[in-house]
Amino acid sequence: MDDLVQRFLNGERRALARIISRVENETPEGREYLRALFPHSGKTHTIGITGGAGSGKSTLTGALAAEYRRRGKTVGIAAVDPSSPFTHGAILGDRIRMQDLALDPGVFVRSMAGRGALGGLAPAIDEVVSIMDAFGFDYVVIETVGAGQDEVEIAGTALTTILVNNPGTGDDIQALKAGIIEIADILVVNKADHPGADVLVSQLQALLSLAPKGSRRPPILKTTATRGEGMDALADAIAAHRVELETTGQLEKHRAEDARHQVLSIARAILLEKIRQATPEHELQALVDRVAARQLDPHSAAEELAAAVEQSEPRAIKRRV
Amino acid sequence: MDDLVQRFLNGERRALARIISRVENETPEGREYLRALFPHSGKTHTIGITGGAGSGKSTLTGALAAEYRRRGKTVGIAAVDPSSPFTHGAILGDRIRMQDLALDPGVFVRSMAGRGALGGLAPAIDEVVSIMDAFGFDYVVIETVGAGQDEVEIAGTALTTILVNNPGTGDDIQALKAGIIEIADILVVNKADHPGADVLVSQLQALLSLAPKGSRRPPILKTTATRGEGMDALADAIAAHRVELETTGQLEKHRAEDARHQVLSIARAILLEKIRQATPEHELQALVDRVAARQLDPHSAAEELAAAVEQSEPRAIKRRV
Repeated sequence: MDDLVQRFLNGERRALARIISRVENETPEGREYLRALFPHSGKTHTIGITGGAGSGKSTLTGALAAEYRRRGKTVGIAAVDPSSPFTHGAILGDRIRMQDLALDPGVFVRSMAGRGALGGLAPAIDEVVSIMDAFGFDYVVIETVGAGQDEVEIAGTALTTILVNNPGTGDDIQALKAGIIEIADILVVNKADHPGADVLVSQLQALLSLAPKGSRRPPILKTTATRGEGMDALADAIAAHRVELETTGQLEKHRAEDARHQVLSIARAILLEKIRQATPEHELQALVDRVAARQLDPHSAAEELAAAVEQSEPRAIKRRV
Repeated sequence: MDDLVQRFLNGERRALARIISRVENETPEGREYLRALFPHSGKTHTIGITGGAGSGKSTLTGALAAEYRRRGKTVGIAAVDPSSPFTHGAILGDRIRMQDLALDPGVFVRSMAGRGALGGLAPAIDEVVSIMDAFGFDYVVIETVGAGQDEVEIAGTALTTILVNNPGTGDDIQALKAGIIEIADILVVNKADHPGADVLVSQLQALLSLAPKGSRRPPILKTTATRGEGMDALADAIAAHRVELETTGQLEKHRAEDARHQVLSIARAILLEKIRQATPEHELQALVDRVAARQLDPHSAAEELAAAVEQSEPRAIKRRV
């Protein structure tokens, strides 16, 4: 293990890839790597890119990475979306080709497996980001799909959250109204060459003008990611947001909230695992059958499971004696 | 409490509304109501309606409810979407007006508050659906937004899941490819009057033809919800799906899986609450601060919290002595 950590700290990409796999699989060994490398993290700037299917966020992610490379910066990309072109090594656009990025030693792409059965981002996403962070990438970009919970979670993980909007369907505004706009630090209208782009920009401006006085107004940028247009301004806006986070104390606050969220969510996963350990499968099934038959309500059943966890430790000690 | 339960069982809508509020707020009292009423549930057919923002699923929900009323059936609607017109009592379409539904004693509409901080559908959604079920509605429709986790969860809760697709953006196909199509029991192409509707139907058919042999092919229906068109066929398709569930044994399987999911997810919430009780806020904050400062990794911190839960019960006894 020490050897792999050493090679990781020397900047060896194969060591990075292997450690990420172990962390992602949530093995005890993976946790040891995380423990060893976590103190090296905390320096990268994490960027979340989110938006509906077809908004062009994968292309935008690739184009932004290319822009950072032009600026001499290194980039880790975690694509949390099974349909992301990153997963398939697809050609992204006219000017940005996945192959170019994949061959660039300053870019590391990792697509993440789907989510756990009980919801949320891929469970290991925070941990994979921490590992990329520890490896020393200047930026780590997390790309995720969809309007919903994922977007809220990505905002918890990423320092700068970019919401990509797609002109053409005025309907997008509905999703924005739903409060998702509140999590965006930067709004991007991609496909700026689309005839509806300016209308969408106006709609977004009108929407932002309704925000309470004193609240932050995220900048609205137009991009055409397939041609790499607008990437310079986007990278500048991200840099400006970073400065804003630092000068307002938001950076510290964000890190503290992210740490709290991570710790509680892992603790919950540990306890769920303990439930499974404390109650043998046939007992769990018997309980579930009674609920399915409406003889027992789910809450009472859950209380039985939770109580078993609390009693499992003394039981285990007894067995050892 | 007994009086309110009695009025509920007598079919009094105000008793239903009050009990739902208590259940939704997750008070101990709410749990008692759930315990008392859960044995009366299990008879309704639950329908999940999901789709992207602007796909017209709210209008479809209203139009389907109107169709069921024409058939002499009662309908409970749980709208899990802060942007849903149900939340605002908005006019839904040319032929379906929210006001008509709201005044109909055979329809009960409830919009649900946002999700908990740690993800998933509104935590009480299953419980609210159980209460509506116990009240005796023939159908309970759950409407939710977005491509992502919500859709997967709604498929766990609802017996029939309807995925609403929106012609015009060929991009929608991306979301479908992402596996979301797998959770749909019925595919609806809404806005059938849109010029792109037939193209979308063909694309969906092509996509379904790629499914492994022997796997279920969800029917594809065209609707124009604003004019109530296609609702008769949709209600028939739902009825056919119900028969299919019953004859293949899927109904029992679904109920068992739903019960397991509910029990485990409540148990997890109980344990999270125990974490908060076992570790005073200042200790939790100290732990989180060490993680934010990268002195401690999140997993080790979480293990400390989980261990405190297991030790909290004996400690409490000691204190009492």
